[in-house]
Amino acid sequence: MRVVQKFGGSSVADAASIKRVAQRIVDTKEQGNDVVVIVSAMGDTTDDLLDLAAEVSPKPRARELDMLLTAGERMSAALLAMAINDLGHTARSFTGSQAGVITTEKHGDARIIDITPGRIESALDEGDVVIVAGFQGVSQTTKDVTTLGRGASDTTAVALAAALGAGFCEIYSDVDGVFSADPRIVPGAQRLPEISYEEMLEMAANGAKILHLRCVEYARRENVPVHVRSSFSNKPGTWVKHIDEEDPVENPIITGIAHDRSEAKITVIGVPDRVGAAADVFTTVANAGINIDMIVQNVSVGGGTTAISFTLPQADGAKAMAALRSAQEPIGFRDVVYNDEIGKVSVIGVGMRSHPGVSATVFRAIAEAGINIEMISTSEIRISVLVDHADVDKAVRAVHTAFGLDADGQAVVYAGTGR
Amino acid sequence: MRVVQKFGGSSVADAASIKRVAQRIVDTKEQGNDVVVIVSAMGDTTDDLLDLAAEVSPKPRARELDMLLTAGERMSAALLAMAINDLGHTARSFTGSQAGVITTEKHGDARIIDITPGRIESALDEGDVVIVAGFQGVSQTTKDVTTLGRGASDTTAVALAAALGAGFCEIYSDVDGVFSADPRIVPGAQRLPEISYEEMLEMAANGAKILHLRCVEYARRENVPVHVRSSFSNKPGTWVKHIDEEDPVENPIITGIAHDRSEAKITVIGVPDRVGAAADVFTTVANAGINIDMIVQNVSVGGGTTAISFTLPQADGAKAMAALRSAQEPIGFRDVVYNDEIGKVSVIGVGMRSHPGVSATVFRAIAEAGINIEMISTSEIRISVLVDHADVDKAVRAVHTAFGLDADGQAVVYAGTGR
Repeated sequence: MRVVQKFGGSSVADAASIKRVAQRIVDTKEQGNDVVVIVSAMGDTTDDLLDLAAEVSPKPRARELDMLLTAGERMSAALLAMAINDLGHTARSFTGSQAGVITTEKHGDARIIDITPGRIESALDEGDVVIVAGFQGVSQTTKDVTTLGRGASDTTAVALAAALGAGFCEIYSDVDGVFSADPRIVPGAQRLPEISYEEMLEMAANGAKILHLRCVEYARRENVPVHVRSSFSNKPGTWVKHIDEEDPVENPIITGIAHDRSEAKITVIGVPDRVGAAADVFTTVANAGINIDMIVQNVSVGGGTTAISFTLPQADGAKAMAALRSAQEPIGFRDVVYNDEIGKVSVIGVGMRSHPGVSATVFRAIAEAGINIEMISTSEIRISVLVDHADVDKAVRAVHTAFGLDADGQAVVYAGTGR
Repeated sequence: MRVVQKFGGSSVADAASIKRVAQRIVDTKEQGNDVVVIVSAMGDTTDDLLDLAAEVSPKPRARELDMLLTAGERMSAALLAMAINDLGHTARSFTGSQAGVITTEKHGDARIIDITPGRIESALDEGDVVIVAGFQGVSQTTKDVTTLGRGASDTTAVALAAALGAGFCEIYSDVDGVFSADPRIVPGAQRLPEISYEEMLEMAANGAKILHLRCVEYARRENVPVHVRSSFSNKPGTWVKHIDEEDPVENPIITGIAHDRSEAKITVIGVPDRVGAAADVFTTVANAGINIDMIVQNVSVGGGTTAISFTLPQADGAKAMAALRSAQEPIGFRDVVYNDEIGKVSVIGVGMRSHPGVSATVFRAIAEAGINIEMISTSEIRISVLVDHADVDKAVRAVHTAFGLDADGQAVVYAGTGR
């Protein structure tokens, strides 16, 4: 059968790692499979290239940055092919463009439009192992080389698995799979044998760095099961796939806890309590090209003003503050305060849909840990709370224990009082 | 007008050098020219990539090595384009493939078959500065990425100058031009304002590392004048071009002295003095895929055997010795001796054609310096002598002085006795 495997940068960080990965690929090939491998740049190559670009130019043009960065995967792909050739199999490396990864023309953040894998099909027909440089493609309109955003080699892999009709896609990295929480924070965190696309999307969107968000979206849309596993062992990892919710009582209510320390909170104080003032604040931020996440608008308590808080990526903090300060006079608010000493803890599980009382359990567990909740947001299968930066680990552990997710843990029984 | 400029690896070795080169390119553009730039990989990048390949594979497959090495020029081209963009001009980098450099499929040593510079023409029409990754192309048959051999960015530049109808091609490096001898050996060596294609071919083929041999061949065939100059100054360099030999008395007899320490000498001893024995020796070497340079067959002095000496690249020494040893019994020679402690000194000048006595002057100058000549070979415009490795510098200086080439030198008057 056709197998698509993706190896991350840590799996091909040096010559020894490349040879080890080559052996694993050859093992798969010798089991009678057609093998297509997607590879990231070696170790810190992409960061090193970004540093080099920063030395040359304060603001490198995106087209040229893509030309530069795509060298990274080109190199690892060629080296991996060499190592496989030494093991007695013929391997051929292809750039994203050669592999037929057709994208939009937005440099640095292009989207895959189509895959035209003619050269891959030919190479497979000839019995070759195919190595594809991840993270890159070619613009349908300009024919220029594009990149798909950091971590997007995962997306390349899933897209190729779908286009090639492979039964699934294996994503190899330096972690054993998806865990019920970050094992560095929760020692009792457990590897999940499987997780639904929807839950994995929420995990990825809320700070879990296992899989790229767009990769999971792609896998869900194309219904490609993804096996997330370690390149350093032969243990099974986590299957990200369609899970039938027919029998929810068999499923755990909560699948995992994600956390995210990359956001900041901005609070706009003394906003005039008039129609459209809040809209003016958010329009200002949106016009600066910034996506916001959680929002809280305080109830006006007299004095004719209110306060608005929202969260956003820390990377956009300075830009948002500048935009708001320049709009202070027209909107007429009193002040704006920036705080990046916050963190978000998210409880995720499709079981929430059918089990009432989950939010009560979350809030009680966090309260009993002595932690103050600053903001709350929810989706159908997720509850997120914003807490102080220093309280994130404690909050994750408290919630993990409360839902009985610890390896030897005991669930706190929660009251069925609805969310 | 259209200007084609090529910058070598030492000219773009780091961020500061890249910015300096960018300024030079922008100056050319602001003089009203359309500018196409060919760039080599930064500093030691190609060697570093070769080292990396050697770590991964003892004998990397040539196709994959080309995939790997072409990353080097891709990076420098992108970085140079970024730096030019910062100076207020739009620059676009292209790989060899994108630039339309169509080659044979011989990986590592492909030949340019055709240039289809459609994308370059479009970019020039839009007023952009064009940056092309040197040294690389795409195979006409396999569509795989190829390289043209070490130093072949010069060839890319000349080929593009011809295809784009540029009046000439500028080759920038870290030397001021072509000198009458290597200035590190001969302090009085003088920069040549111009040199003919034929002389430059002999210089390049006999150890002068200023220009790639194939680049000069290409320039001669397409009649593209090449201006070899330094990227570290604004001084004029050396024009390599067609020179009319109508008035030879105005031209110097000798243009320059080249030397080469990269060859080795193999002597086959006790070769049976029968018809075809020498042919058997050279057939053996040729079948091993090795090109030889100078040849001497000793006159048989009784005993029914003779000795054959020839020179070849040191890199091919081991292969040649192995081939000869395995043919020792069938051919019937007594022994074979390898010596890489030799060097070749070549005296080059079109003036030789019309001036007799040049070889006498060469041999006398070397004899008077107390140096033994081991082998001799000549072409219409060149005399080469093989000497001991340790005598190369002294021989170059002696001949340079003998022909009055020293900056303040006095020519030794040579006897007009014919060669």
